[in-house]
Amino acid sequence: MPATPTHATRPRIAVTMGDPAGVGPELCLRLLAEEPLHEVAIPIVFGDVSVLAAVAERLRLPMPRNVENRETFSQNAHAIRTATILDFQQIRPTDFTPGQVSAAAGRAAFAYISAAIAAARAGQVDAVCTAPIHKEALAAAGVPFPGHTEMFTTLTGAARSCMMLTAPEITCSLVTAHVGYRDVPQLLSIETILDAIELTDAAMTRMRGRKPRLTICGLNPHAGERGLFGDREEERFIIPAVERARQKGITIDGPFPPDTAFLARRRATTDAYICMYHDQGLIPLKALAFDEGINVTLGLPIVRTSVDHGTAFDIAWQGLANPASLYAAFRLAAQLIPGSPNG
Amino acid sequence: MPATPTHATRPRIAVTMGDPAGVGPELCLRLLAEEPLHEVAIPIVFGDVSVLAAVAERLRLPMPRNVENRETFSQNAHAIRTATILDFQQIRPTDFTPGQVSAAAGRAAFAYISAAIAAARAGQVDAVCTAPIHKEALAAAGVPFPGHTEMFTTLTGAARSCMMLTAPEITCSLVTAHVGYRDVPQLLSIETILDAIELTDAAMTRMRGRKPRLTICGLNPHAGERGLFGDREEERFIIPAVERARQKGITIDGPFPPDTAFLARRRATTDAYICMYHDQGLIPLKALAFDEGINVTLGLPIVRTSVDHGTAFDIAWQGLANPASLYAAFRLAAQLIPGSPNG
Repeated sequence: MPATPTHATRPRIAVTMGDPAGVGPELCLRLLAEEPLHEVAIPIVFGDVSVLAAVAERLRLPMPRNVENRETFSQNAHAIRTATILDFQQIRPTDFTPGQVSAAAGRAAFAYISAAIAAARAGQVDAVCTAPIHKEALAAAGVPFPGHTEMFTTLTGAARSCMMLTAPEITCSLVTAHVGYRDVPQLLSIETILDAIELTDAAMTRMRGRKPRLTICGLNPHAGERGLFGDREEERFIIPAVERARQKGITIDGPFPPDTAFLARRRATTDAYICMYHDQGLIPLKALAFDEGINVTLGLPIVRTSVDHGTAFDIAWQGLANPASLYAAFRLAAQLIPGSPNG
Repeated sequence: MPATPTHATRPRIAVTMGDPAGVGPELCLRLLAEEPLHEVAIPIVFGDVSVLAAVAERLRLPMPRNVENRETFSQNAHAIRTATILDFQQIRPTDFTPGQVSAAAGRAAFAYISAAIAAARAGQVDAVCTAPIHKEALAAAGVPFPGHTEMFTTLTGAARSCMMLTAPEITCSLVTAHVGYRDVPQLLSIETILDAIELTDAAMTRMRGRKPRLTICGLNPHAGERGLFGDREEERFIIPAVERARQKGITIDGPFPPDTAFLARRRATTDAYICMYHDQGLIPLKALAFDEGINVTLGLPIVRTSVDHGTAFDIAWQGLANPASLYAAFRLAAQLIPGSPNG
């Protein structure tokens, strides 16, 4: 665990630039220029100055004056009081083409992330907020993770973690995430489900400032209809996890049939959903609240939030990227920092 | 196949009363009294006069005067010109309690359905529209079907069928429906997927009066991301089915990642979705359009539509049931009748 930072001053948040060929550089430049957000926390973009400068010139966006390199940063981190770029000198604009997959861009994106995790663990920053990466670019670079969540879980040595997506309209936590459809049932257990419930309850308590109400979905159609469909996963795993959670004082309803769990009238009384698999949570979340979603990794020894959209290669470097999700992710990261006055 | 009816007169639609202990009797009485709907088709409620009379008296709803019994009906069917009750004398109000599961009610509900299927196959009615049944009541009565769709498929001897849910906002067809989560992958094949595509294309062509645009979902998160997740079901089954469908002149896009397939901007250009499993289609449909959904069984030798809600035992016989879904299902049945002027 990092040393708990004191917040007589504003917290510092590492913002990883994401895949250089995607919308990440533009989003980071917009965040660096968005001064009202800096009253919440100080952004330190983990990226490349040469790439950011090229995007800034093309789109006529301002570049911040404060730049650190990796050597100066480890000494100066605690003294940073203004929006900053931490320059990795990892990649140059001539090394790749905006909007196209490349191993060089994947390698750079991973370098920003792994350094941000290390900085958070060392207490140099108080949280990490990530811009989008491209899975094929990572794979081309030989990075052995399917996504951010898995990187953060492994690189922080977290014993348990949980991917949560949140938007004003709906919040969903996932018991399983980036695995194939057919692999889900074997990954469900009382323990994995209870982990997701407990981590979500803790995060929502902090976000809402009160005890939250959770709703849990079944795995099977109609939540199995008492064993009529499926392998009684509801009775074997989900119901026992719910009972244990209630014994710990958590307010949780279900398991409900997945198709009626997301009706407007149940959403109105639900702070967060516990979902058994990726699309059970992400289909309703994106159908209802696509542009507003934020991705949070729960259960880590550090705070980590992310945009909930991809690299959008089709509009990369064009001035068309909507920074709303990154701004919201940045605000939520500040709110989730232990001891933060934003909480 | 039934003899194709002529529609110099209005078509006749069998409306099954559903579980007597649920909202079905009230919904049927409201439909029987809704005269503007009878200009579209003549409703013949397959149910019990004693039950309908008890509900009518309690809720002060009108009872239609025209009642047939099963003997007179088979002679008179083609001469019926007004809203009618076909009285089965299968159950009496004293045999069960409104809002409670009973084998007697399940047995009666099944009797109405099996007779309606036979009447449609004999050409005595032109379509069947079903009120809700209760799966536990059916099971208590020893009825060997998990739901309407399976009854209609088996009892009509259909070689293939497909459950489609439709609402003004969104339409979804299901390649698999009432099976456990873990059983889905083994039920997917190029043939089962192509069946759902072809049946949906034909139904939507009739409903829209033009060539529809279909969207198909992947099975795995991110549609498998080129084999990164899952067992390449997209490459093995879904993509080949899409290619065959296109060779037959069907307009279909995908497979797409399930979580982004239902975004508002794709919904705007999609007439119907082809979904791999129950909750992939029903979660977005019910989240977006719960009260307006209609259930259609495609691929049968007869026309069959249904409400898309349950027996609502908590409000049974109380005058609180919303007949909008039954009215919409009745209208759609009329529209789907071959040769109908409503089509």
